[in-house]
Amino acid sequence: MAMNVMQELGNYKKIVDSELEKFFDSKIEEIGDPDNPYSTVISFLKEYTLRGGKRIRPAFTYYGNLLFTEADSCLDDVIKASIAHELKQAYYLIHDDITDRSDERRGGPSMHKMLEEWYIQQNGISHEEARHQGMSMAIFAGDLANSFAYDTISQTGLAVVKKNAAIEILNNTDLDTLHGQVLDILSGIEPEMLTEDELLNIHLLKSAKYTIESPLQIGALLAGASKEQLKILSKYALPLGQAFQVQDDNLGLFGDEEKLGKPASSDLAEGKKTLLIIKALENAKHSEKRIINEYLGNPNITESMVKQVQDIVKSTGSLDYSVNLAKDLINESKEYLNQLENVNPEAKEFLEKFADYMLDRDY
Amino acid sequence: MAMNVMQELGNYKKIVDSELEKFFDSKIEEIGDPDNPYSTVISFLKEYTLRGGKRIRPAFTYYGNLLFTEADSCLDDVIKASIAHELKQAYYLIHDDITDRSDERRGGPSMHKMLEEWYIQQNGISHEEARHQGMSMAIFAGDLANSFAYDTISQTGLAVVKKNAAIEILNNTDLDTLHGQVLDILSGIEPEMLTEDELLNIHLLKSAKYTIESPLQIGALLAGASKEQLKILSKYALPLGQAFQVQDDNLGLFGDEEKLGKPASSDLAEGKKTLLIIKALENAKHSEKRIINEYLGNPNITESMVKQVQDIVKSTGSLDYSVNLAKDLINESKEYLNQLENVNPEAKEFLEKFADYMLDRDY
Repeated sequence: MAMNVMQELGNYKKIVDSELEKFFDSKIEEIGDPDNPYSTVISFLKEYTLRGGKRIRPAFTYYGNLLFTEADSCLDDVIKASIAHELKQAYYLIHDDITDRSDERRGGPSMHKMLEEWYIQQNGISHEEARHQGMSMAIFAGDLANSFAYDTISQTGLAVVKKNAAIEILNNTDLDTLHGQVLDILSGIEPEMLTEDELLNIHLLKSAKYTIESPLQIGALLAGASKEQLKILSKYALPLGQAFQVQDDNLGLFGDEEKLGKPASSDLAEGKKTLLIIKALENAKHSEKRIINEYLGNPNITESMVKQVQDIVKSTGSLDYSVNLAKDLINESKEYLNQLENVNPEAKEFLEKFADYMLDRDY
Repeated sequence: MAMNVMQELGNYKKIVDSELEKFFDSKIEEIGDPDNPYSTVISFLKEYTLRGGKRIRPAFTYYGNLLFTEADSCLDDVIKASIAHELKQAYYLIHDDITDRSDERRGGPSMHKMLEEWYIQQNGISHEEARHQGMSMAIFAGDLANSFAYDTISQTGLAVVKKNAAIEILNNTDLDTLHGQVLDILSGIEPEMLTEDELLNIHLLKSAKYTIESPLQIGALLAGASKEQLKILSKYALPLGQAFQVQDDNLGLFGDEEKLGKPASSDLAEGKKTLLIIKALENAKHSEKRIINEYLGNPNITESMVKQVQDIVKSTGSLDYSVNLAKDLINESKEYLNQLENVNPEAKEFLEKFADYMLDRDY
């Protein structure tokens, strides 16, 4: 029977969530005082990290490892290492939400909002001050999640050479992600100047690397994969990660509101620079360009305005372009998988099916 | 002739600054495009990091290493590793300045202020928006400095076991520092509730560990020091680090404005919870307590108000208490040095003289 990617992810998510819970609980226990403010911040981080997410990154570490193993000799350590990217993800999301002024995340308040509300419950602090203090504490909560990511790898019983290599991958990826963040924020100043290549480069740096390449490579290297094999995984991972983002943006404007958990207006209101918008601006008539530029970044955008933008994106061929690009990237990605020989067929199937799922998903 | 600590620090600072410069330049060169916004952020980080500071932390790595070496067999790598704590310091300062709303640092603008001004120079962005964007980019600039700290250790040619141990110390220290940051921020809500023990614990976690213990231990372990020797270094480092902070606060209220580069009003205006204030509040009469509580945190505090607080701090015996505590901590610290046997006498002398300098310094 064919593998069901969502079910596989769901199964591994249970393992990951239990590992994350254990990790945070051990940190809180170490402090030895649940009322200590530091324990409180870690509890917040625990709730935030466990609140949602498909745990794609840990799954890539798991399957990256499985590719090159038959028996699961060091499985416990692989699971421990696999949560590193989930902690990194918490770190990025927390800092991102501050910079993007997003008050929601995964169906709950963002970290700075949680802490702001917590501050308001304390006596003698104004709402304005609570806002600043909540944001401040959220910067440190993000920093903490980042340090925890390195810590979870240090805590494994893996050979030092492997730990060291994993930490180097984790940190090099971090430098790329931050590079992408900087480009992304700055592209916000002049969104019209952003080209397709630049956007795809941001997707590569800011998302593809830490979402797919890095967790996959860490899993593989812990199983003793060769440099050549790590390179092939990278070639699989990067276009797939780019496709993931492109498809995310496609769904953002044309997906089902209920399934996505956000309305189609959301990306537009935020002024998000997507390939849909870039290509539409390239090919639209003057009057249509004006409409896009007027509505993009308008926090009060209405349904009929959204409809107008959707129509322009369709009529300029921009939607087709974007969907086809995602397809091409995914095909490119899958082709590299064929270069992996003598690997565990179950793991290879997961990677293949995951790529297919990227295109078929509707949320 | 007796060793001059300031001169030693000054000599090593030249080496460190040149290493930092090389590090940042190589990062910018790697990008290959000086006009890329990411290059700009790294240039800002370079200017910020090189702007000032005595480079105490790198010096501790150097002398920690020298303690257990005769020849400087891996000196280049030790210098490279020694800048890790200077990069960590930049990371902490950048994030701290955001949370403390400090617009100045080391005689220039803080990072968020630098970036805010840079944004204002870009067209089409309001001052309010520039403030938010500058702060956002500064969060990432701090994050970047943090990743660079791990990166500089990875880049050394040291044995993997040593790199790994150094990174573990660096990261464990980071967790302690963040723990201290969280306690420090939260103590701001109810400063009157802060006890002497709690303050000294914050000094320990937030400063002593990453300023003295961690750089010293990393230097020592790179020279092959034993666990027992690392423990002794820790016992030397922690009280010294606490004394450093206590003395810093003493100078903050009673030091020479010109030498310190900041007026005596500065800590009071900021509402800083120092041992001077805690002890004065403990022993002051009701009317004096009221004065302190009224002036502490008043951004418009006048010279005569400062004088009143100084008088209360003196008359309650709080200044003497604080000075004596710093002395006791330093003596405790120096006693542990005697347990270090068969070490390089020059390095040991530096550690001894540095402790003395802590007390004698007037800036």
